[in-house]
Formats: sequence, C-alpha cells, structure tokens
Amino acid sequence: MSDFKRPLRLGMVGGGAGAFIGYVHRVAARLDGQYELVAGALSSRPEVARESGLALGLAEDRIYTDFKQMAEAEAARPDGIEVVAIVTPNHMHTGPARAFLEAGIHVICDKPLAATLEDAEALASVTPKGSARFLLTHTYTGYPLVRLAREMVARGDLGKIRMVQAEYAQDWLTEATEAEQNGTAWRADPAKSGAGGAIADIGTHAYNLTRFVSGLQVTSLSADLDAFVPGRRVDDNANIMLRFEGGAKGMLWASQVAVGHENSVRLRIYGDKGSLDWQQENPNQLHFSQFGAPTQIITRNGAGSNGIGRVPSGHPEGYLEAFATLYQDFAGVLRSEEPAATLPTLADGIEGLRFIMAAIRSSEADGRWQPINQ
Amino acid sequence: MSDFKRPLRLGMVGGGAGAFIGYVHRVAARLDGQYELVAGALSSRPEVARESGLALGLAEDRIYTDFKQMAEAEAARPDGIEVVAIVTPNHMHTGPARAFLEAGIHVICDKPLAATLEDAEALASVTPKGSARFLLTHTYTGYPLVRLAREMVARGDLGKIRMVQAEYAQDWLTEATEAEQNGTAWRADPAKSGAGGAIADIGTHAYNLTRFVSGLQVTSLSADLDAFVPGRRVDDNANIMLRFEGGAKGMLWASQVAVGHENSVRLRIYGDKGSLDWQQENPNQLHFSQFGAPTQIITRNGAGSNGIGRVPSGHPEGYLEAFATLYQDFAGVLRSEEPAATLPTLADGIEGLRFIMAAIRSSEADGRWQPINQ
Amino acid sequence: MSDFKRPLRLGMVGGGAGAFIGYVHRVAARLDGQYELVAGALSSRPEVARESGLALGLAEDRIYTDFKQMAEAEAARPDGIEVVAIVTPNHMHTGPARAFLEAGIHVICDKPLAATLEDAEALASVTPKGSARFLLTHTYTGYPLVRLAREMVARGDLGKIRMVQAEYAQDWLTEATEAEQNGTAWRADPAKSGAGGAIADIGTHAYNLTRFVSGLQVTSLSADLDAFVPGRRVDDNANIMLRFEGGAKGMLWASQVAVGHENSVRLRIYGDKGSLDWQQENPNQLHFSQFGAPTQIITRNGAGSNGIGRVPSGHPEGYLEAFATLYQDFAGVLRSEEPAATLPTLADGIEGLRFIMAAIRSSEADGRWQPINQ
Amino acid sequence: MSDFKRPLRLGMVGGGAGAFIGYVHRVAARLDGQYELVAGALSSRPEVARESGLALGLAEDRIYTDFKQMAEAEAARPDGIEVVAIVTPNHMHTGPARAFLEAGIHVICDKPLAATLEDAEALASVTPKGSARFLLTHTYTGYPLVRLAREMVARGDLGKIRMVQAEYAQDWLTEATEAEQNGTAWRADPAKSGAGGAIADIGTHAYNLTRFVSGLQVTSLSADLDAFVPGRRVDDNANIMLRFEGGAKGMLWASQVAVGHENSVRLRIYGDKGSLDWQQENPNQLHFSQFGAPTQIITRNGAGSNGIGRVPSGHPEGYLEAFATLYQDFAGVLRSEEPAATLPTLADGIEGLRFIMAAIRSSEADGRWQPINQ
Repeated sequence: MSDFKRPLRLGMVGGGAGAFIGYVHRVAARLDGQYELVAGALSSRPEVARESGLALGLAEDRIYTDFKQMAEAEAARPDGIEVVAIVTPNHMHTGPARAFLEAGIHVICDKPLAATLEDAEALASVTPKGSARFLLTHTYTGYPLVRLAREMVARGDLGKIRMVQAEYAQDWLTEATEAEQNGTAWRADPAKSGAGGAIADIGTHAYNLTRFVSGLQVTSLSADLDAFVPGRRVDDNANIMLRFEGGAKGMLWASQVAVGHENSVRLRIYGDKGSLDWQQENPNQLHFSQFGAPTQIITRNGAGSNGIGRVPSGHPEGYLEAFATLYQDFAGVLRSEEPAATLPTLADGIEGLRFIMAAIRSSEADGRWQPINQ
Repeated sequence: MSDFKRPLRLGMVGGGAGAFIGYVHRVAARLDGQYELVAGALSSRPEVARESGLALGLAEDRIYTDFKQMAEAEAARPDGIEVVAIVTPNHMHTGPARAFLEAGIHVICDKPLAATLEDAEALASVTPKGSARFLLTHTYTGYPLVRLAREMVARGDLGKIRMVQAEYAQDWLTEATEAEQNGTAWRADPAKSGAGGAIADIGTHAYNLTRFVSGLQVTSLSADLDAFVPGRRVDDNANIMLRFEGGAKGMLWASQVAVGHENSVRLRIYGDKGSLDWQQENPNQLHFSQFGAPTQIITRNGAGSNGIGRVPSGHPEGYLEAFATLYQDFAGVLRSEEPAATLPTLADGIEGLRFIMAAIRSSEADGRWQPINQ
Repeated sequence: MSDFKRPLRLGMVGGGAGAFIGYVHRVAARLDGQYELVAGALSSRPEVARESGLALGLAEDRIYTDFKQMAEAEAARPDGIEVVAIVTPNHMHTGPARAFLEAGIHVICDKPLAATLEDAEALASVTPKGSARFLLTHTYTGYPLVRLAREMVARGDLGKIRMVQAEYAQDWLTEATEAEQNGTAWRADPAKSGAGGAIADIGTHAYNLTRFVSGLQVTSLSADLDAFVPGRRVDDNANIMLRFEGGAKGMLWASQVAVGHENSVRLRIYGDKGSLDWQQENPNQLHFSQFGAPTQIITRNGAGSNGIGRVPSGHPEGYLEAFATLYQDFAGVLRSEEPAATLPTLADGIEGLRFIMAAIRSSEADGRWQPINQ
Repeated sequence: MSDFKRPLRLGMVGGGAGAFIGYVHRVAARLDGQYELVAGALSSRPEVARESGLALGLAEDRIYTDFKQMAEAEAARPDGIEVVAIVTPNHMHTGPARAFLEAGIHVICDKPLAATLEDAEALASVTPKGSARFLLTHTYTGYPLVRLAREMVARGDLGKIRMVQAEYAQDWLTEATEAEQNGTAWRADPAKSGAGGAIADIGTHAYNLTRFVSGLQVTSLSADLDAFVPGRRVDDNANIMLRFEGGAKGMLWASQVAVGHENSVRLRIYGDKGSLDWQQENPNQLHFSQFGAPTQIITRNGAGSNGIGRVPSGHPEGYLEAFATLYQDFAGVLRSEEPAATLPTLADGIEGLRFIMAAIRSSEADGRWQPINQ
C-alpha cells in the first residue's frame, strides 16, 4: 500500500453535523489519503451548513446550501472539486447526482441509488458531461475476501455454479421504534424511503453481493414479505427464492427482526467442484471447500489469497482502526492536557524492556524466577 | 463519533517511501481527521526525504533530513508542528524522542521504546519542555473490547484475579529468512534490534496487554527461550511463567515459528467470579463467563459493551476499510479514466431497485415467480 | 443415568451382515443396557439370516427369514420379543410394522415411515393389538439440546415465533454415483425409494426438526426442486419457503450437492423476544439470544441447560464413544494376543505418576527444572 | 464397523449403585457388543453388591463382595471372566489389578493407575499369569482424530516437532466444595487421592495426550502449582513448562478454577513444517496447518482423515447417543405404558410424507403455495 499520491479534490452533499453516513464517507475518503474535502453543501439549513463546513476546514466561499449552485460554482473554478459524495436521504440521491454528472463532476453516491425505480432509470438516461463517472457504495464489495471470492468463481475454482445462499439478518427493528410508535418514522413511510423496508434497506446489499460474487444475473424470484411488528408499514422480513441464468438456484433471507443478529451478512456459493462461505462479521476468513478435500480457511492476505489489503495477514481489518484510536485519544489528551488512563506511556516502554531483560536473564539461569525490577 | 475538530499539526521522523510502519501511522493519523501532516524528516537520505515529502504534500521548507534540525526549526515556527510521530528502527527511537520532547513537541513513538533498557531509562530521565507528552503505540490496547476488558476487570466483574493466559503466535519466521541466510538480518543482529527476538518483537505486546487488562504488575518470571531455526541469533520462541503482585499466576507464550498462526494475539484472564477471553484475529467479540452461568458473547458496541467504536455493532472493525477501498479504487479509476470491473455502478443501483420491485410484486402475487426485468 | 433395569426383549427385521442402519440400531439399543436382542429376521436370504443371527448370539430357533412368521412365533412364546426394530429399505417398512403391531408387539421403525403416503396412511389405519406402540427414529430429536430448544420455545423464552430457518446440507451426491452411472441406483429409482430424493432423504429430517422445536404445524409451502446432476431421476436440492399456523414464516434448504457440507443440520428459530441456533455438527452448544442482551452459549448439561445427557457438561457427546473405543480395541488385542500400539498401558500409568511427582517437586523448589525420571 | 463377534466375558470391581465411572465403563463395554458383563464385586457392602449385581443381570453365584475371592473363583470356572474392569477409588486400583493379573485375567483399570508412585511401581513388578494384559483408560487417546494426529506426527506431516501447547481447564472447583467446607473431601485429602489435585486429576490426562500424540518423552519440567481456594489442601491450578527429548519445548496448563471452562482439553503441536490443533469439546475437527498454505479442517472420517469412527463424517460423535436416547426413552414408555411427548410417532411419519408430496406438487406447479394437508 502506498499513500504517496496527490489527493483528489472532494465535495460533499449532505453529511452535516449529526449525520452518520456522511461521517463514514469522510473517514473512507481520508483513510488512504487520496481525497481532500474542499467544498460542501452539508445541509440545506444555512447555519448548519456553515458551522459544519467550518468545523471540517472548508473555506467560507466553498460552503453551499444548494447542490445546484454548488455544482455550477465548483465546475467553474480552476481548483473546483473533481468528485462529489452524495450522502443525503434516499429520495434525494438522484437530484444531486444528475446535477454533478451534468456539470462534469464525478459522483460517489450512497446506496440505494434512489427511492423509486423511476428515479433511478431517469438518472440512467442522463448524459454525463465529459468523462464524469459514477460510484454506488455497495460496501460489502470492498472487502478483500469478497473480491477474492469473485475472482475464484470467475476463474472456475468452484466449477459451474449450482446454488447460492445469501442472508442479511439484523435485529434492531425487533420491536416498534419510537418513531413508529408516534408515527414520525421515515422508514415507515413508503413515500420517503421508497417501497420496501428490509428488502430495500439490506436485501439489496445481499442481492448485490450475490450478483457480484456469482457473476450471474438473477432472472426471476419468488418472494414472501412480512411486516411482523404490529403497525409497521413496510416489510421487516423477506424470504425469497431466486433463479439465475444458466439454471442456478438460490435463497435470500433479509430480516431486521432476527433477534441475536447484529449485521449478519453471509454468502455461500456452491458449484459442481467447490464452494465458498464468507461472513461479514468475521471478514478476514473465507472458507473454501473442494469436493473430496478438507475445507480450507483462506485468510485475508494469507496463503492462497489475493494479496489485497492494507495490513499483513493475521492483522484483522480493524487493526488500523485500533491504531487510529491511539492517535485519536492522544489528540484528545493534547487538546485537554489531561492524561488518558488507557494510553501507553514512557513507563510502559520501560516496563516492556524490563520484561525482555528479565526473560533473557531467567532463560540464561535455567528458568530461575527473576524479579522484573532488578 | 465526530470529525468536526481542528486537526493537530503533525510531523514525522522516518516513514519515507517503502517503510511500512510509517504508512500505518499516517493512516491512523488521517482516519479520524484529527491530524494534518505538515512536516517530516522522512529519511536521512536527502533525495528520498524530498520526494517522499512532496508526494505527501509537504511544503519544501518543511522537509528535513535531520531530526534535530527539524525539532529546532519547527519549535521556532508559529505554525510549527504540535506533535511528531517517530517511526524509525528500534535503536533510533530515543534520540528523536528526546529532541522533540526537549523542544516542547509531543511525541508519538512506535514500539518498542528502545533497543536497550539503558536507552529507555535515559529517555525517562529527560525533562520535557512545557507540557510535552509521550505516547507509545501499543496497538492492541486500542481495540474497543480490550478496553472494555480492562474496565470489567477494574470494576470487579471477574472478582479477584487468579490466572492469566497470554499468547502471541506467528509463523513467518518458521524458516530462516533470506537475510538470515546471507547474514544481513537486522533482526538477527542483537546490536541493532536489541537483545531479544520474539520476546522483544511480540512478547512485549502480550506482556503490555496482560498488564493493561489485568491492572496488575508482574513481580517475577521464569523463562525458557529458544532459537529453533538453525543459525538464528535471537530467540524465536519464548515459554514464560509469570507471578503477579497479589498472588495471581500466569503463562505467556510468544512464538514466531508457530506454523498456522498469522498474528494470533489472545488474552484470557480468570478471577474467582468470572473470566474473559479475547482474540485479536476476531477482535469484535469478547467472551465473558460468570461462574455458574452460560458464557456470553459480548460484541463491540453491542449489548453489554462499552459503546466505543466508530461503527455500529455487527459492522466489524474493517467495515470502514471496506468502505475506504471503494473510495480508493474509484480514485484510481478517476486518475486512469479506465473503469474498474469491481466497482458498483449506476446499473447496479437500478438492478437493486428492480430486485425490490420484483420482490414486492411476487409477495403481493402470493409468491408467483416474477422476472427481475419486467 | 442408570443402567440398573431389566432389558426389554428385542427383535430385528433387516440388519443382516453389511447393513449400516441395522448396526446403528443395535448400538443404540445396547448403549444403555435396556434392550437385549433375542430374535431376528435379519435377511430374507436364509444363509445370511442364519450367519448374522448366530454372530449376534441369537438362538437357532429364533432366527427367521420371514417377518410374518417371526411376528406370529414370537407373539406365541412366553419369552417372546416385546419390541421389534424394523431396519429394512424404505418401501419395506410398513409391511413388517403392520404385522408386529397386529401381533401386539411394539415397533421401532427407521425413517422415513414409508415410500409413499398411501402406504403410510394405510399403516395409520391399523389397530394395534393390546397396547402396542410405535416409534419412528427421527434421530435429531434425540439430542439433548434439541429437546432443550423445544422446551424453551414451549415455555415462552422466545416469545411468539416469527421465523424459522432450517437447513440440511450434504455433498456426497455432488457427482453422479456409480450406481446412477450404471443405472442400478436404488435412490435414483422413485419406485423403490419413493418420490423425492434429497427432499425425502434429509428434507424430512429438517422438516421434522422444525415442527419438533417450534411446536407449530406448517400450513403450506412453496418449493423449487432441482436435480443438478445430469441423469439423476430425483431431486438433489430443494429450496422451500414455509408458512406456519399463526403467521410464522420459514425457509428450508435441503441439499445433497452442497460441496463442503458433510451432514450440516442447522435450525434457527426466532421469536419476538429471543432466538435459538443449533447445529448438529457441534451438538453440545445451543446459542440463545434475548433481544438487547449478549448471546449466551448454553452447553449440554451446563448452566442454563436441562440436565439431560449421559456425561457431565464439557464432555461432548462422543466421550462415551472414545471410551468405548478403548474397550473395543482392547477386545481386539485380547482376541489376537497382539499389543495395540495406541492403547495406554501400565507404563503410561507410571509415567503419569512420575509427572505428578516431578511437578510437585519442581513447584516446591521454586520452579527448578526437575527430571521426570528421578 | 461390525458387531458380529462373540462378546468377551467381563467382570467388574466397584461400580455399584450410585457410582458414575462404573456406569461409564459399562456403557463403553456394551456399545460395540464385544463384552458381556457376567460377574462383579460391585461393592464391599454385601447388600449393595447383591442388589446392584441382580439389577445388572448377574447370576447369584457370580456376585462377590471381595475381589480376591472373585479373582480366584472366576479363574477356576471354565466359563470364568476373561477380563475385569477396575473402577474403584484411586488408592484401591493396584490391589485388585495385581490379584486379577496374577490369576491370569486381563485388566482394564480406570485412571490414574494408583494414588502413589510406589503403588504403581509395585504393580509394574508383578508377573501376570499367562498372557494377562493391562489397559489404562486414558480416554482422550480413544478419539479418532487424536489417533489421526498421532499418525500424522509419526509419518512426518509436521516435520521435526518444536513446540507443544497442552491445556486442560475446568471450573467446577472455582469455589470451595461443600465437602471441603466441612472437611470430608476425598479430593482434599492427599492420603486418599494421592499427592496432587488438578495436576493428578486432569494434568495427567494432558500429559498423557502430549506424549501420545508427539511420540516424545518429556525429560524435565518446571512447575508452579497453586491452591487458589482458601483452605484447599491440594493444587487447583498448575502452570508447567516442559522439555522434551530432542529439544522440543512445551507448556502445560491444568486448572480446575478456570471459570468458563467445562472440560477444555486442547492440544496444539508445532513442527518445522506443520502444526495440529485439537479440542476435545469439538472432537470431530482437527485443524492442520502446513507452512505457507491455508489451514485445513480435517473432520472425523472426512477427506484426509483416517477413516476411523462408527458413523460417517458429519455425524458427530454423539449421533449414536442421540439414537440411543430414542431407544432409551421408548423403553421407558413401554415400561410405563405412558406416551412420551418427545418421541416421533406414526403421525410424524405421515406428516413427513405429506411434506414430501406437497414439496413435489409445489415445485411442479412452478412454486405455487401448496397446503400440507391436501
């Protein structure tokens, strides 16, 4: 991995103070040092847009409240943004996407693409200016072992695909939410979230993952959707059977009322020679079975893998986050000038060296117990 | 989580092109948006220092080749760095650390602190200027569930601690490395790496983790170190028994020749009421057992946890990295203007909406199979 | 557990030399010492019936070749069998079952009950003589934690049941069998095995398990059956959606072409308060999740379990088999008078005591290394 | 597997009503049908011996109260026992063992061999009459995958052995037992149980397993034993380092105060080419790693295994016990003439066939939902 590259100039629509997914997009943009946030229409409320923009280090003249104005102004600047991230609610994705594509600015759009198929297809008919490109952030396709899985299927390691078992289970909607109880739920209102509850929110991820790894198109499906929580207006559980081009068959389960599941994305795919099993909650392992041989545990960056990943095998994805936590906490210490009890200090470093020396002394003395502090 | 804070001005010593740990520190610094790299002595070789610095966006006048000069110059600037990251080889940690602390600049130092106990203690005797602080990056203490473990021990969930089982096993030194074979191994040279091989390289991590979670000091130890690979000059396997203040006992195993282990850090700690089990290769789970009750699986940010973490429970640490991979790949696409086969597109978004609509149609038609493309 | 009970007199129909399931039934009958095999129509071929019967210790006059004759003769004896095990091929279950029930002899019948629904219903119309009873060996209902799961559902630990996910996956029919290739396959011939391949062979187990644990009847289903292996005449993969009385929904997957699965029976069941997850390949654990609390690992006979099982918690089912293997191997040694390299001997016992003494000596000498053989 | 063999005539010393390990030995002896219990000195109390013997079906004249008399009488009978199982408390093992060996009768002895090394060595000096043999029941060596592990080490799959990590952890002695509190604890009395608590009770199992699989002798050890529970007179935790002939090193942990562990026996063994990892609580899997290749999951009887085991791969050990539970419960039903709610019946069989028929109908009708009861 290398971060020795000039960053692209990035803008953001949505993502003002309090918005979760905007934060995720910014972290993702920063992590590899390849994007620099320089402009934003972070909120339609001027005060929020301004305060959020300043907090993120934007210059005053590049803080906008209207995405159309932003697209126009940035396209006109010599140092204008090259790419924009759209992190607004679902039904407000395609408007900004169209505006920036038509202004010749690349678009990174949170999923789902739109609240309705009509909106989505309308966007597809847009002719981008220049070579403006479009990215939809189906996150699960970014995991190194998901990409390996796709490669393995494509190169025939599994033989001809016969069956797919996909599931995405959560439990956070097991009971009626407060918003549902008092009638203000955005999700419970098909007009805003689009048709579909669990099927749209998470089922599409499972579906995208299925297509991504199998390389196959689904031709038809048979579905049984339910809203188990009384009063809920969209589905919270979807049982679906799938048929693929070429004869493969599948099952897909998406549920937001499956007690005990936090974010259980799992994909299993079976061919006539082998199979793969990947679970997002332990994303550093991929189980690979060949007919008549012991199942193998392929690890990210480990033997038999594709060498993708920012850290060596055995360091789970998340290692960088643990590292970043030390940096973050230290920043907090430096700002407040108060010590953080959990941060390793000079004393810890000395303690470590005393440990090494004691271990060497003890081993040289045939295991005689040695004090740490000699 | 929030990233609405002014970043601290960061410098770096070491970490020029090709250095892995410097890259890790930069990612960690960037991830939360709380540091901005503005100066560096990235290499002692002028050309490397300059090219690396420019690639990372440093101004020409803040690219140094000598850490002393850098400390002096930066301390004198009104916009000088507030904190420096030291990512040089082990025996070159304490020199820069001293220079920056004495210049009143905070220090983030890669572990281990030094190659020798003498160097480390000498550094401890330094009086920092002003309120300059020091952070040693013992990464494993940055995992949310490691911190929860420490909290649980501290608040008595385990009762009085009796036993600790710590291990850190790798296999990458199972065979003699090329450098060992031709005699150029940095690690095989105690003069450069310090005394201790596995014991220093990874044993200190396990030891630090043991102290961090248990909150107990080790009073003495009994060790049996080996160099299993013929010709190796430092230990590659360490079997150690520990005695703690207050009577607890422990075992610590550190090995770099344990075939099948990539980076297996595991800590188990037992009190008279309960126990904890954490493994770094699946860092999002902590097993908690109370005597006479079923073992519980505590998840990061999940029920019973401490609510630390950047993403909701069920999204493993690594989720942000998967997200960042999409951003990174898209940056590559934008630079090259070539499409990347693996990135989700507008067509994928439309496909997702077709899936939703077909599922709803099928469910409304009592499960009648529906084509995806109607 | 106790084995201090008079054994019941058992007969067997089918199960002569070479038959696997007859062996399994005999082991099951012997294990607890509650049955004694005293009569059998082990084969319709007189020579096989006689040799198999003698090898199993039957008296000459209680070795039969015809089940009707056996039913009649045994019913007439004062020391006649009290119960009979029927272990013939599927299409030969109901004939013997009827004969013995009408003779007033209890019946244990291997599953499935019959090759056709007509045969099964005909048997159901039989009036047994006296109090003759009938047992169908749906093995998976015999696991202690499956029974606990049923109890937990029944007493409301999961609340109202919403979803069930059942699967039974194997891979042994991934390729065409030799019998299929040369046309002699019993399984491939619907006339003999009954309609249904995977759906009948293993799907019924998953279905029975679903009903057993949920306590719910299935009202309707939607199915998609396939025969993926070219030339196969019955299904080898079944994707099914289920609807239960009271509104619960389910999915059931049965496959014999799922590479990597040996005998993966799994049942997950979700209510509005909690869920359970059980997998046959690790039958000693049951995962129990309550909404808003960490998942618990309930172990057979462990805390929170139902105290069913022959051995204490932590000894997996299979412990008794490991124990039995020592007995079996020793029997082989005694018959052949040749030593078995793997059996523990007197020398091993002495070695164990030397280990204990050395450990105590070393600990008393503050960890000084001690030779095992002093 | 086959059970077509004449059973050996078995006697038992100890194991009267209420004794757990006697029950385990009888189950093990019965399971494969290769032993028939025909004589016993099940208790030294005449009434218990008689009642227990009759309950187990022994003839009056083969119920003894004195093991010496039993050895003599049985040796004199033409139909006398061929082998005896000794299941008395530890300090009463060697007396009976000697008596039967000197009478020319084979001995199966529960572990540990004796309470003291002296007793054990005295037994070793006995000259058995004829070809009388001796078996010590170190159960863990009876697991098929433990035997495979031994074979793999022996044939060089791991290369030269370097390290061993053995552990046996339980938690049932985490708190003082009632017997310890009132001073009647058999285990707390070194005079009866022999020196050593956890080290003797379970440490010897881990030690035996280590030797069994590695094929190596331990030359010396360094130990740190503790009795963590106040008032306990023998160790309940043992930390031990091992040295093997040939230079391999090991660690062994035995604990009976390790909260959360029921019966966690684990052995990991590392050579310069590969490693193995086996855990008793999931005995049907063996992890095998070769340097530079993905870890493989070898299953009992599965691909790459040794084909040992009574049931096919995927059926865990314990499958036979689940089967036996159906038989046992049915015996209970037959004795009491009351139905057992959990046993599968004729109705379940019919339900299974209705399921099959509905699945076929639905699949033939392109997935139209079908009622189960048509």
